[in-house]
Amino acid sequence: MLEIEDLRTIEDMARGAVLLGTGGGGDPYVGVLFVGAQLKTGRRPRIMPRDELGDDAFVLSVACIGAPTGIVEYLTSEKALLTLLARAESFYGRRIDALISAEIGGANSMIPLAAGAITGVPVLDADGMGRAFPRIEMTTFSIAGCRSTPALMMDEAGNMISLDTVDDRTMESLARAITIEMGGVAMGALYPMSGRQAKRHAVWNTLTLARDIGRTIRETREQSRDIFAELLALLSVQDGREARILFDGKITDVTHETRDGWHFGRATLADIDGTGRTLTVDMQNEFVVARDGGRTVAIVPDLIGILDRETGEPMTAEALAYGQRVKVLGFVCEAALRTPESLEVVGPRCFGLDEDYASIVLLADTMAGGRG
Amino acid sequence: MLEIEDLRTIEDMARGAVLLGTGGGGDPYVGVLFVGAQLKTGRRPRIMPRDELGDDAFVLSVACIGAPTGIVEYLTSEKALLTLLARAESFYGRRIDALISAEIGGANSMIPLAAGAITGVPVLDADGMGRAFPRIEMTTFSIAGCRSTPALMMDEAGNMISLDTVDDRTMESLARAITIEMGGVAMGALYPMSGRQAKRHAVWNTLTLARDIGRTIRETREQSRDIFAELLALLSVQDGREARILFDGKITDVTHETRDGWHFGRATLADIDGTGRTLTVDMQNEFVVARDGGRTVAIVPDLIGILDRETGEPMTAEALAYGQRVKVLGFVCEAALRTPESLEVVGPRCFGLDEDYASIVLLADTMAGGRG
Repeated sequence: MLEIEDLRTIEDMARGAVLLGTGGGGDPYVGVLFVGAQLKTGRRPRIMPRDELGDDAFVLSVACIGAPTGIVEYLTSEKALLTLLARAESFYGRRIDALISAEIGGANSMIPLAAGAITGVPVLDADGMGRAFPRIEMTTFSIAGCRSTPALMMDEAGNMISLDTVDDRTMESLARAITIEMGGVAMGALYPMSGRQAKRHAVWNTLTLARDIGRTIRETREQSRDIFAELLALLSVQDGREARILFDGKITDVTHETRDGWHFGRATLADIDGTGRTLTVDMQNEFVVARDGGRTVAIVPDLIGILDRETGEPMTAEALAYGQRVKVLGFVCEAALRTPESLEVVGPRCFGLDEDYASIVLLADTMAGGRG
Repeated sequence: MLEIEDLRTIEDMARGAVLLGTGGGGDPYVGVLFVGAQLKTGRRPRIMPRDELGDDAFVLSVACIGAPTGIVEYLTSEKALLTLLARAESFYGRRIDALISAEIGGANSMIPLAAGAITGVPVLDADGMGRAFPRIEMTTFSIAGCRSTPALMMDEAGNMISLDTVDDRTMESLARAITIEMGGVAMGALYPMSGRQAKRHAVWNTLTLARDIGRTIRETREQSRDIFAELLALLSVQDGREARILFDGKITDVTHETRDGWHFGRATLADIDGTGRTLTVDMQNEFVVARDGGRTVAIVPDLIGILDRETGEPMTAEALAYGQRVKVLGFVCEAALRTPESLEVVGPRCFGLDEDYASIVLLADTMAGGRG
């Protein structure tokens, strides 16, 4: 069973959360600082495994909404987290039995841990994506019919808004407009669920997976073992999933653009051996598609990771820069995201990409076939 | 005591509400249609005078927020009004004892009447402005320290949002952002007050005033009496207030611009006698300043009305067009809006005008002095 023993556990978890963030979701490192400070005062978040969760328990997500750069304020504000949880209990009229991350990828992996450390409310070893996505309705919860609303939003000034919307897409649009008006970042309490719903519809053991990813990278690096071989081995034992290195190269170009509150960009890589092969990775907050010589080799909702080729450190989209030597990793997404119903919500077309989802494995086979 | 006896009473009231809307607030005529339909089914709004309101009564404003052009949908939707009031009672945990208009000027004069006709909840003969203003915090309620929140907003799809903000300016910004996302128009339940607060801080007898204005114009027109003489006589008996005709002329130019959700514009008038005198009337949703040959003759919060010079019909800013022959009327605002505290919230500088408030009477005296 996962326990947050020390700062190193949180650091490992944050490192793993960057990889699972597939370039987006904000940098969870600020969470390390905050939870680390809590650990020093003897308060540590208690992780609740699946089988301890009662069917009738009241489970709630807490998350930052908006610009990742603004998240640091909240993750370092005990008062904001305490206020949010107190207001949420009064709003829902229930004691919160367990917190859950809506999004294990990026900074939102850390919010429930921070809130759990302060309040003592257990944190589930689970989330609603198994990665990061840019929109509120892009969760396994929502896909399964659990609703993000009634939800609460607050800002640092103390403005409090509750929302009850006809669907989660509308919640996303309203929450985005409110967040912009609130200064670009807000805290949210959303996806009120029963224990039964969380057990059935969450992606489980993702805090453990994040920790294992971070630990594998750290230990193999410290012990000069083969970082990528062991990382691939770890990822490929995950239930029905597979991971591959898609490219080994050097970043030759990065473009960034912020438009309508979204971060768009493209990284272009040349292969490390100088054979002239190039890979492009397109971003829409997260990395959404990787193309090798124009042919798709990984596409959302599969995870695309870009890691330093020497240290194995996973990189956020914002951190990419010319000249970096990196490996690009593909990781088949959680099974729950690959169903036809899920692909309606998180598939390539939801990101304006005019192609169907195919897993990295299928795409590799097709490419091999095409070459043969 | 004011009673809504028939359709004509509502029509008179709507005509008066256009004049009190000082060009803005939307056209109340849609409310006439709706309330008229209610009257046909035997349901009429009951108007509650000040002395019938209990100190501990629960008083609530209901209003349309956003583009006046969208208001027609709500004013003709029984279901939306019923839903809003039911949700409001559950949200505030109290039965609504009386409804009040936040804004007597324009279409929002009609919303409480419509809601009152359907539900039987009495409507107070009062409002929070004695005219129209473009922002939520611009009320005598807010100026006196009564808060617009906790407030509810809903759209026609059924999305429901509650807001609890640190001040009414923040409520205005958030409500505006939400309204835009809701498609440009929303219904709001706001300014929850006690009977004691409403008695002390509302502008009273404004439904009666609207009705009297509309009736005076109609009757004098029908009986070929002097519309403007009788209208000025009516307005000038209002407590400590005065009305004057500022200009008699022909519209030679009108500009309109919609920017950041506001309606800006300017009407230019040449005097009817062709002596070369010109008057400009600047609009920011409402008419905010009138200048005769460049000298200010009326400025917000005093009311500026533009009326057809033959029929006396008051005109909304959107209805102004080249060639119309009109009289421009100035009307000293409610005393409560002229205090230094009020002018901080509704004075010229709140509209970006770089001059202090002076009443139409003082301005006329100054002008006469300047000429002498």
